[in-house]
Amino acid sequence: MVDWLRHRDEEPAWREIPDEIEQALARPLAPGGETEEAIYADFLETVLPYSLGNTHPRFFGWVHGAGTPIGALAGFLAATMNANLGGRAQAPVLVERQVLDWARELFGFPAGSGGILLSGTSMATVVGLAVARHRATGGRDRVDGIQDPSRLVGYTSAEAHNSIAKAFELLGLGSDALREIPVDDDGGLDPEQLERAVREDLEAGHHPFAVVATVGSVNTGGFDDLLALRRVADRHDLWLHVDGAFGAAAQLSSRFAPMLEGIDRVDSLAFDFHKWLQVPYDAGCVLIRDGELHRATFESRRDYLTSQERGAASGEPWFCDFGPELSRGFRALKVWFTLRHYGIERLGQMVERACDQATHLGDRVEAEAELELMAPVTLNVVCFRFRDDTATPAELDRLNREILTELHERGLAVPSPTRVGDQFALRVCICNHRTGPDDIDALAEATLAIGREVSGLVAV
Amino acid sequence: MVDWLRHRDEEPAWREIPDEIEQALARPLAPGGETEEAIYADFLETVLPYSLGNTHPRFFGWVHGAGTPIGALAGFLAATMNANLGGRAQAPVLVERQVLDWARELFGFPAGSGGILLSGTSMATVVGLAVARHRATGGRDRVDGIQDPSRLVGYTSAEAHNSIAKAFELLGLGSDALREIPVDDDGGLDPEQLERAVREDLEAGHHPFAVVATVGSVNTGGFDDLLALRRVADRHDLWLHVDGAFGAAAQLSSRFAPMLEGIDRVDSLAFDFHKWLQVPYDAGCVLIRDGELHRATFESRRDYLTSQERGAASGEPWFCDFGPELSRGFRALKVWFTLRHYGIERLGQMVERACDQATHLGDRVEAEAELELMAPVTLNVVCFRFRDDTATPAELDRLNREILTELHERGLAVPSPTRVGDQFALRVCICNHRTGPDDIDALAEATLAIGREVSGLVAV
Repeated sequence: MVDWLRHRDEEPAWREIPDEIEQALARPLAPGGETEEAIYADFLETVLPYSLGNTHPRFFGWVHGAGTPIGALAGFLAATMNANLGGRAQAPVLVERQVLDWARELFGFPAGSGGILLSGTSMATVVGLAVARHRATGGRDRVDGIQDPSRLVGYTSAEAHNSIAKAFELLGLGSDALREIPVDDDGGLDPEQLERAVREDLEAGHHPFAVVATVGSVNTGGFDDLLALRRVADRHDLWLHVDGAFGAAAQLSSRFAPMLEGIDRVDSLAFDFHKWLQVPYDAGCVLIRDGELHRATFESRRDYLTSQERGAASGEPWFCDFGPELSRGFRALKVWFTLRHYGIERLGQMVERACDQATHLGDRVEAEAELELMAPVTLNVVCFRFRDDTATPAELDRLNREILTELHERGLAVPSPTRVGDQFALRVCICNHRTGPDDIDALAEATLAIGREVSGLVAV
Repeated sequence: MVDWLRHRDEEPAWREIPDEIEQALARPLAPGGETEEAIYADFLETVLPYSLGNTHPRFFGWVHGAGTPIGALAGFLAATMNANLGGRAQAPVLVERQVLDWARELFGFPAGSGGILLSGTSMATVVGLAVARHRATGGRDRVDGIQDPSRLVGYTSAEAHNSIAKAFELLGLGSDALREIPVDDDGGLDPEQLERAVREDLEAGHHPFAVVATVGSVNTGGFDDLLALRRVADRHDLWLHVDGAFGAAAQLSSRFAPMLEGIDRVDSLAFDFHKWLQVPYDAGCVLIRDGELHRATFESRRDYLTSQERGAASGEPWFCDFGPELSRGFRALKVWFTLRHYGIERLGQMVERACDQATHLGDRVEAEAELELMAPVTLNVVCFRFRDDTATPAELDRLNREILTELHERGLAVPSPTRVGDQFALRVCICNHRTGPDDIDALAEATLAIGREVSGLVAV
């Protein structure tokens, strides 16, 4: 398996799943059991070759982590120990507290602030906004639910990720209660338009309670101005939550950390260890400035969960009081191994290296007459496409869609599809420590070659 | 590590964490990185020896899974592949679909019903009730939030787990909207009292929308009568959700499956693979009878998540449309390995063996004049205590609390604390395939010995 990781670049970046594999993976369960060897052999034949490709150096799609050998080791150790980190007196709980302390230190959160590992930023945002809701309702939400006659409303940028709207939905607030504020020329949530929207909602009798900032927007890698948003939030007593799913990793690089100025003054921060911080899936995190409020939002014990002064049932505080999960896996161990092994410095270098590759791709695209950059490159995201000045907008979309499919099906590279403004784009997001300049050049050349090949066909 | 698993019974069931270990696990992160060997050595010294003990044959606390070597292997493979199961065209998604099909088959859910793996039953219940809420609001909750002037109310048994109230809280319904219905003589939610409560709520202008049944209650292993609850639910158009965290595993045993009669007719079922089904943490599951409604509750895509007809971005449906998580780990692989390796038959035997141990403990307790059973043994849960007829109720609580602590601190066994009625009890819940009659006898004898030793001290 370690060999498999080591030689990823000798394999296609993605492979279509053959029908017979699809059928094999739809078989009913044999009631009588099978040997370890048989199942492992089946895994090697039917599962491993048909990964999505995110460990491959020419995988650029969506926002995927790439994994590491040390993360794989930690996954094995965690599955062997099989710890349940809901609480109680055990070293795994101390490991999670330790990695949360490292995260607090990294982002300038005070000692005593709350924090917990979750499955990813989607759930971390749910938790952050649940605490915000708890504060906004004066703590009544837990017992009474949302019965506020003046509706709770929040704000985020038009470039924000859909996980924020989904969090509003799950929490019973509804996506209509999330106002999408246009971005300014720098691609960040426009603070003046935010101010205006809050005032309008106040006048309409609504109850503005939270603003969700984005650091590292999914389509363009854009950053909201946290200091400016903090000022608006303070003026109107709004909770300031940050979606830093991948962008928060910029904090590890002295080159990019200034884009996160003010991160140490937000109320809650959601981010992933499993994206740009190289930890295997799944490992997200939320930090909450007000640790007591965090606990007050989720704390709940019955007789069978009371703790004791001593023995296995001691060890307060318990993590089950800081989120919606009671049984909780040992996500912390892979974070612990990964951060310790690489250290902040090398992880920061990986961040910079990824951004360098993005810059290189941006330069390559701008240098090629047949390629077109769809948005400025500010971090690790590049949206671009093949151009053909004789094609209509619809034809151009179709052409680039075809290029994307061919890149995938030939196993050359895996960008993902998106739209920038009104136009289809190939989206490249580089979190992968294995990606180098050769991979970028290979992508550019393959796009050009396929584009030339296909544009004739599409135009006909 | 496999050796560690193999020789668990030669170690204490639990060990107190020494101060120097606690300090070691509070150290700041070294910025420059460390070698794999150094971190692994540190893990062996500071983490592994201070597990909670749930892999140990004399660990009986709370409801913990015990793990297996095949689960550890799967954990390693999953962490190496590092798949993100949000969606897209990859074999890991097919693996999750396959294990969900096995679960549908096991519980008699129809093809086309919805399902997804989650971190555990707590989140699975959130998802099940989110779908119920979506149905009850005619789909308006996603956009408008909960603004129903008639309040949504639900019902569960007084013996239900607190994760259900927590789900009501997270969903914005509030815990007051969850009516706790007393249990009948068999320990299950009383259908007649449920009927009465629903009528009262209707008369008060509320909107009854869901009943949450429990199969395997946490304190006594009691089962609600699903067929009786189905009738009440049908009469009032209520969603019937089942919390089967560990108790759903009874379905694997022909001896216990009759207690789950009607499970194939519920609207949603939440249960854990990581408890009695021997899969390592974390792996919970929800099945939703109405697959379209399940999808309609969570489906949400933006440009950067559109799928394509072909290539890596194909492979609909995507799991991100069936729950709150977008990035999702490869939980399915350890379920796939575990279910295939042991097969339903052997897993069912493990269920029966655990119940046999519980029965044995119940018999032992009843045979000992100094021990007292606090509730009938119906499955794998035994609540008991040391008795001392000269002691006051408060003294008896203190005595048994002391016994529990001594059992832990001497590393002899790990029951957990609870209360049955008004009285402190030692709670034993056996999910562990490693537990045998000798372990049960050792627990009974240690309880007697410590009880005799301590009762003199406490009485003085």
